Amino acid sequence: MGVEIIKSKIRDVVDFPQKGIVFRDLTTVFKDADCLRELSDMLTAIYAEKGITKVVGIESRGFIMGPILATRIGAGFVPMRKPGKLPAETWQESYTKEYGVDVIEIHKDALCENDVVLLHDDLLATGGTMLAAYNLVKRFNPKKVYVNFLVELEFLKGRDLFPNDVEIESLIKY
Amino acid sequence: MGVEIIKSKIRDVVDFPQKGIVFRDLTTVFKDADCLRELSDMLTAIYAEKGITKVVGIESRGFIMGPILATRIGAGFVPMRKPGKLPAETWQESYTKEYGVDVIEIHKDALCENDVVLLHDDLLATGGTMLAAYNLVKRFNPKKVYVNFLVELEFLKGRDLFPNDVEIESLIKY
Repeated sequence: MGVEIIKSKIRDVVDFPQKGIVFRDLTTVFKDADCLRELSDMLTAIYAEKGITKVVGIESRGFIMGPILATRIGAGFVPMRKPGKLPAETWQESYTKEYGVDVIEIHKDALCENDVVLLHDDLLATGGTMLAAYNLVKRFNPKKVYVNFLVELEFLKGRDLFPNDVEIESLIKY
Repeated sequence: MGVEIIKSKIRDVVDFPQKGIVFRDLTTVFKDADCLRELSDMLTAIYAEKGITKVVGIESRGFIMGPILATRIGAGFVPMRKPGKLPAETWQESYTKEYGVDVIEIHKDALCENDVVLLHDDLLATGGTMLAAYNLVKRFNPKKVYVNFLVELEFLKGRDLFPNDVEIESLIKY
């Protein structure tokens, strides 16, 4: 199938969530069984041999492909969530967004030093959320942290926020 | 592995999200690679031969096992979300919760009459959210609708809300 066919199935929604933004809507990809399988195969091909023990997905859209990939490569799945959603003790990290401060959380018992972690979200834009997620995961001092997105908006240069030695992969680029 | 081992890995969090509630926390199951695989196998065994074309997951915890099951049985995945999150045109359904009214949405192009739908969420408590989700899916007039939960709190009798002919399955019962 290949990445160009998947890219052609992404729906562009103009002025969402606000004026001037073109939203890359992946629901039109996920609802197509062949596309969903292909995305799963593409991610598995990249990450199957890296010894990943935990896939961490960022709420909510990172919960869709993250768990699929986890089962495909024999890893566990860990949700990183908005404040107040995780029931047990958490670590938090706050980050600045266009209109204020946001917070993400992870359970304190979610990861350990022996883990090789893959951080996953659907889209890399300015990168603020993923950088906070990355810093949160680093507190556990895991062996290694990989970062993955389905879609990357390259013109926003979000990957420049991260240390040079972080392996960041995205499947579809704009 | 079996359902009792998975049940033993669920973490009970007392007084979350409010006093008097014992929250059944599945994150301790999902982070365990063997448990995640076992849950996936158990769901696949139930639904693989039913001709399901779309798995609909309810935000956010229904996004974790829903997409895994979709890829395992060759279906697409459709997210049902809180208001304002889906970028294109939606149908909405409101429902009453303990402290007010809540709304869920689905894209108008998410399903069609030829679909066989599996509605999935992590937990069946009083059933209000899933009943709203069921009514929303029925608007598309699909061939058939199955309903699935990982955990069912049987003493709350949530399944009594649904018509008798709806096939409701849950893996773990309290």
